[in-house]
Amino acid sequence: MKIALDAMGGDYAPVVTVEGAVEAVNEHEDIEVLLVGDEPSIAKELSNKKYPESRISIRHASQVVSMDESPSQALRRKKDSSIKRAVELIRDKVADAVVTAGNSGAAMALALFKLGTAEGVVRPAIATTMPTFKKPFVLIDAGANVDCSPENLLQFALMGDAYCRLMLGRKRPKVALLSIGEEPTKGNELTKEAFKLLKKTDINFIGNIEGKDLFMGNADVVVCDGFIGNIVLKTSEGLAEVILKMLKKEIADVATGKLGYLLMKPAIKNFKKKTDYAEYGGAPLLGINGTCIISHGRSTAKAIRNAIKIAAEFSRKKVYAAISTELKEVYLAEKAFVTG
Amino acid sequence: MKIALDAMGGDYAPVVTVEGAVEAVNEHEDIEVLLVGDEPSIAKELSNKKYPESRISIRHASQVVSMDESPSQALRRKKDSSIKRAVELIRDKVADAVVTAGNSGAAMALALFKLGTAEGVVRPAIATTMPTFKKPFVLIDAGANVDCSPENLLQFALMGDAYCRLMLGRKRPKVALLSIGEEPTKGNELTKEAFKLLKKTDINFIGNIEGKDLFMGNADVVVCDGFIGNIVLKTSEGLAEVILKMLKKEIADVATGKLGYLLMKPAIKNFKKKTDYAEYGGAPLLGINGTCIISHGRSTAKAIRNAIKIAAEFSRKKVYAAISTELKEVYLAEKAFVTG
Repeated sequence: MKIALDAMGGDYAPVVTVEGAVEAVNEHEDIEVLLVGDEPSIAKELSNKKYPESRISIRHASQVVSMDESPSQALRRKKDSSIKRAVELIRDKVADAVVTAGNSGAAMALALFKLGTAEGVVRPAIATTMPTFKKPFVLIDAGANVDCSPENLLQFALMGDAYCRLMLGRKRPKVALLSIGEEPTKGNELTKEAFKLLKKTDINFIGNIEGKDLFMGNADVVVCDGFIGNIVLKTSEGLAEVILKMLKKEIADVATGKLGYLLMKPAIKNFKKKTDYAEYGGAPLLGINGTCIISHGRSTAKAIRNAIKIAAEFSRKKVYAAISTELKEVYLAEKAFVTG
Repeated sequence: MKIALDAMGGDYAPVVTVEGAVEAVNEHEDIEVLLVGDEPSIAKELSNKKYPESRISIRHASQVVSMDESPSQALRRKKDSSIKRAVELIRDKVADAVVTAGNSGAAMALALFKLGTAEGVVRPAIATTMPTFKKPFVLIDAGANVDCSPENLLQFALMGDAYCRLMLGRKRPKVALLSIGEEPTKGNELTKEAFKLLKKTDINFIGNIEGKDLFMGNADVVVCDGFIGNIVLKTSEGLAEVILKMLKKEIADVATGKLGYLLMKPAIKNFKKKTDYAEYGGAPLLGINGTCIISHGRSTAKAIRNAIKIAAEFSRKKVYAAISTELKEVYLAEKAFVTG
């Protein structure tokens, strides 16, 4: 599997991207990484590392899209950006998948523009895996589409269902709609309409799920628009960090706490490991013709390594093609009742 | 201050409502509570308690609106419900404020219908106080309005600003708009339009706030529509619970952890106290002609006691009248640029 890695993408690039790539090829014999970006910087990072040289190469790109750049501006102005060149490597069949921790808006726009949407898909969506008390669930859309129609949400549900079966190995995923009450009548105009559409599908739609139950782990796929999905994702990440920070502060204020903290450290470490986004590596953009994994801007080398691993698996299983087939079959058959 | 308490509202009513009322009158000499609901049940709960009898009385109501009942059905069918009778006591100037931990949809509908909106207000909104790493902030709207216009969000900001100054004592509250990026161009159609309106006001609008920064405590007021607000509120509550549960489980799995947990217990207790919704008691419905405090369905006696305390303070400071004056002045002056 050839993975094109945007070596300049993310807050700590190219240090962690190169490190992650080296770890990935050292661990997996069937993975080859094409590091896309500023050759001198990448070569410098590579120079002091041990790895099978045949499986890491550099593809020079002279520009970098910064994290806060407007995607439309970046596309117009930066014709030789690392993320653009990386996506082009899939389009040109040089690479099987692309991984980026850079500007996610630019990555999405480029993937859409260069690779196109899969047949039957109206809008691609980001599927993020989130840890819970029991097993992780897939949140879709986690930020690709800020304003959605009920039909968009229906498609997100179908894509999330297929993704959950193929990548998380769950046989008949429980699909839920994020809302403010369990009853079908609870929600906003968008979710109330989407509820009706979801009821008519063959997927295992379990109805609305409320925020309070999100992390109990009773749903496999949770569907929402990308604006809410992104807010839920970021709020949860931020809150988890703050809670640990607050607990540490409380512990520091209590005399017996310091000793307690030392004794509890392994437990806290285990908890952090279980809830660390780096374990999940990145989130695929579902519904495009190809494999594009979007990682957290703050990705560590471990997160990049895991994202490369996921990209390889995603590509090996041809998940994007399966989603397209699935959507064509299920969705086009259902389209009759959606529009008619 | 005379507080009408919906004695039948909430998961543990009337046990905790009566207990909370007794605690409130015992602690505050200027508080009088009218317990509204089934007289025999309330009298039974009161029978074994000590309190100044002149400051607690019962107002019989034969019906109860259940938590999952549709507000519109409840309003039509239950003419003698405890929440309806409680709201009517303000309308009839018998009580100064109402507190309920019951069906919040029914409470809002009744408050709106019986008391009316304050002059200049298009839609009332729920203002919830949420704990953060530093100081608490006000989230508005936390669930009263699921589909909003940019103008609605502007009004929520103005009401939240006034509330934060009057009740939380902050001089010039930092007001932020919940979105998915800090730049004005980031967001959905609703927030992008609301951003423009907020920029033109005299309030201390600090721009967009992302989910990840919500609990850092840098904003005093966070504005969003009620659908997202409710999801953020419930997700945060649920996540905090799950994190503590997961930590406990990890601790139980680590041999040294059990001892560590015992030593850490005071710290965890302090943390829980700081983040406990019961400390905040309840959330006011802002923008109506009167004081209506909506408490959590799972309210404990402590939460009810605090809600009664807040209702008294809210009513004493005539916050609802101040908000109306504020909105009339600021908003009506600004209406020219909103609509013109």
